[in-house]
Amino acid sequence: MGQKKGGSGDSEVARPISLTLVVEVLRGVAQVDFMPSAVCGLFFVAALFAAGWPYGVYGLLGSALGTAVASGLRLARGAVEAGLHGYNGCLVALGCAVFLGPGHPATVAVAVLGVAVAVVVTAGLGAVLDTWKLPALTAPFCLVATATTVAAPGFRQLWHGAGAPAALAAPAAGPTGLTWDQLWHGFFANIGQIFFMPQWYVGLLFLAGIFAASRPAGLLACAGSATGLLTAWALGAPAAAVGQGLLGYSGVLVAMALCGVFVAADGWSAAYAVLGAAAATVLTPALGAVTAPFGGHAFTWPFVLTTMLFLAAVPAIPRLRRI
Amino acid sequence: MGQKKGGSGDSEVARPISLTLVVEVLRGVAQVDFMPSAVCGLFFVAALFAAGWPYGVYGLLGSALGTAVASGLRLARGAVEAGLHGYNGCLVALGCAVFLGPGHPATVAVAVLGVAVAVVVTAGLGAVLDTWKLPALTAPFCLVATATTVAAPGFRQLWHGAGAPAALAAPAAGPTGLTWDQLWHGFFANIGQIFFMPQWYVGLLFLAGIFAASRPAGLLACAGSATGLLTAWALGAPAAAVGQGLLGYSGVLVAMALCGVFVAADGWSAAYAVLGAAAATVLTPALGAVTAPFGGHAFTWPFVLTTMLFLAAVPAIPRLRRI
Amino acid sequence: MGQKKGGSGDSEVARPISLTLVVEVLRGVAQVDFMPSAVCGLFFVAALFAAGWPYGVYGLLGSALGTAVASGLRLARGAVEAGLHGYNGCLVALGCAVFLGPGHPATVAVAVLGVAVAVVVTAGLGAVLDTWKLPALTAPFCLVATATTVAAPGFRQLWHGAGAPAALAAPAAGPTGLTWDQLWHGFFANIGQIFFMPQWYVGLLFLAGIFAASRPAGLLACAGSATGLLTAWALGAPAAAVGQGLLGYSGVLVAMALCGVFVAADGWSAAYAVLGAAAATVLTPALGAVTAPFGGHAFTWPFVLTTMLFLAAVPAIPRLRRI
Repeated sequence: MGQKKGGSGDSEVARPISLTLVVEVLRGVAQVDFMPSAVCGLFFVAALFAAGWPYGVYGLLGSALGTAVASGLRLARGAVEAGLHGYNGCLVALGCAVFLGPGHPATVAVAVLGVAVAVVVTAGLGAVLDTWKLPALTAPFCLVATATTVAAPGFRQLWHGAGAPAALAAPAAGPTGLTWDQLWHGFFANIGQIFFMPQWYVGLLFLAGIFAASRPAGLLACAGSATGLLTAWALGAPAAAVGQGLLGYSGVLVAMALCGVFVAADGWSAAYAVLGAAAATVLTPALGAVTAPFGGHAFTWPFVLTTMLFLAAVPAIPRLRRI
Repeated sequence: MGQKKGGSGDSEVARPISLTLVVEVLRGVAQVDFMPSAVCGLFFVAALFAAGWPYGVYGLLGSALGTAVASGLRLARGAVEAGLHGYNGCLVALGCAVFLGPGHPATVAVAVLGVAVAVVVTAGLGAVLDTWKLPALTAPFCLVATATTVAAPGFRQLWHGAGAPAALAAPAAGPTGLTWDQLWHGFFANIGQIFFMPQWYVGLLFLAGIFAASRPAGLLACAGSATGLLTAWALGAPAAAVGQGLLGYSGVLVAMALCGVFVAADGWSAAYAVLGAAAATVLTPALGAVTAPFGGHAFTWPFVLTTMLFLAAVPAIPRLRRI
Repeated sequence: MGQKKGGSGDSEVARPISLTLVVEVLRGVAQVDFMPSAVCGLFFVAALFAAGWPYGVYGLLGSALGTAVASGLRLARGAVEAGLHGYNGCLVALGCAVFLGPGHPATVAVAVLGVAVAVVVTAGLGAVLDTWKLPALTAPFCLVATATTVAAPGFRQLWHGAGAPAALAAPAAGPTGLTWDQLWHGFFANIGQIFFMPQWYVGLLFLAGIFAASRPAGLLACAGSATGLLTAWALGAPAAAVGQGLLGYSGVLVAMALCGVFVAADGWSAAYAVLGAAAATVLTPALGAVTAPFGGHAFTWPFVLTTMLFLAAVPAIPRLRRI
């Protein structure tokens, strides 16, 4: 979802075409966390395989297919090279595997269709948002994944679940005091849940990848995760959900986006990023409740909505500087 | 919902005012399928009367009222002449008749209010979308019809149904293998459902009208219908719904819009149109599920959302040319 | 939510800073009804205290905090002076008190967070809408309040209600014929419900405040309230809800916005305002039904959506003149 174009340590000179492709595809995976870095992408792919090999395969092929479709349609070369047509494809394919089951032929078919559509949506939304110099972030993924998962129960080849996924949201239940394990698991799981993965060690691998690409970005990811934990705990979110990273994943992305990636990093933007991360944490159960009656998921909608509004405000705030 | 302005065979010279009005109103009906042709409009009105005389009356008067309100407000003459203020009025009035019952006085009142509001919404949305040279399509109708049908149970003069229309969507049930009858009925019903009509012969009359106005447009309508049928069948949609055209109607409009109406017709745009029609077919049960908990309907929202995003992407895709 | 900048009778010369602040905060409260007038704000605060002292405190401090945050971020001085960063804060804080209970520490915390976020959202949405010279109206409040109230059941410190607030909307029940008491109570309650208050005498105080700032605005508020009553009664809304102002509050704001505040007042804009107020009245139960399954509220969304579309259309309508 990033915008940065220069690679971080990936030199561009005289590289064979196949290697160029590999680099673009890996950058596509890394751009889910704004990092235009193939090294970071390697860490991320490793994290997905650590969670389960089908996830690694779907994520990698999703980025590859998105990049290929964008190249085939002759979209702007710079964006393709930076991996900006890979990250939505990666997430769309991965989401199909996670929510529809990786082993069904129809899952593959709808993932291919979804990745192709996500490339078009990225271009279309990009053109619309360009009016205000706003990035599309993961909005293309959120749109396609929401449509696909909500449509799935209507198609018997796509839906293998026992009952209906649609339900009215119920008020929070269970204890809210975090155990030590829930606290540190949650800290890493917040980073893993960006790719739908709740395991702490998977989150740790993702975090290592971010640090490998950029130390400041890694620190901001940590700050976003901590803000999410603190906000969720203070307002009394169920501890079990907090420990699985279900409250804080959008905060991680918001913090990175608002301090360093799209806004120049300084004290003011750090405070802005913390405010944004707290807002996204409150927004997460709200979007869970909004989408529950039609069997949807919050995905990274809280990140997308918060970041877009906060970025749109930046030109009006003399304290902050857009990059 | 079209944009084409020159009439197809309707000469403009020295025509008495009353005839001008009739031509504008008939073009208004025809513009539901993008055709600025009074001959096509005659076929469409015949199709509505074939489905039931109240539908013909509501559709025709809806187009007439929309055209009259737009003239009264002095909106741009060219758009009024092309029928571009008739098609949303036609659909709004028809939708009131279909969903609230044509015989109640309050249905007439809310239809009149809805058509007038639709003219304003068309102008307002048109001004907003003009930033990206995007057409309003049937979005004004979808907005007004969604508001009206969702509000209806809250008003005792508007709602004569037995129970509450709001319900959570249930997973698809029933057989998915299409019989031969369901296949060819569905092919025509996809075209009829644009006007809410499930009968195959009504769809056939609509298709004849499109062919009367433009042979390429007729072929694209057929391609869109076929894409809808194929996608719905492959993913396992219930055969009964497919046979009534409930999955494929948006695909028909998407295919026409993306190849010939708003994008120059060639091999690339044909492929683009097929991709869009398939996407809209998946989106249709998704929007059915989203709107079910508040008693709404998918209407042509799948067409509107898919076409807008696909059209917004066109300037970024060198393979395609916007017209 | 207004745009008018010159104060009405509040002279700007040589005023001590503390008084300036008081004036800005009171104007912030008054801008909920578009009035950049501290005198009007005094009436409004009195009305809130008449409804219950916690409401007065939350409303006043909400406006003060919004104004302070905007000043701290160095947002455009003219807008801050006109009270344009107070009204959304006032409504956000008040909404927290009304829907989450004023006496809980977490309500205070989330109100502070919400008011700060509302300032950012006002700036962000303002920048986006400026493309079409559209005002943000109460959209920032509606966004923040919807997110907060829908998220609340997910947080055990925020939610003290007995059961789940999420439910499917049921069709209207009960008598629809208005008694004389319901009629005149509803007339004033329509104005009070803009601040969530159903008492007729509270609404009367608000109306007095509007008249104190501007006689034409007061008349338009009355016309909007009457249009709401008439539309709701004619279509058969439940009389009990009409008498509490639950159908007509958006109509009051729409009428003021479309005749006098944002569109030059004349016969055409008066008719336009009545059409808009009627449309907003129908939209109100629709948005109630849309938000019910996720435990949301219609808030002033009907006013925001109707007014934005009607204002966007104004440049296309030669009969009307935008101010």
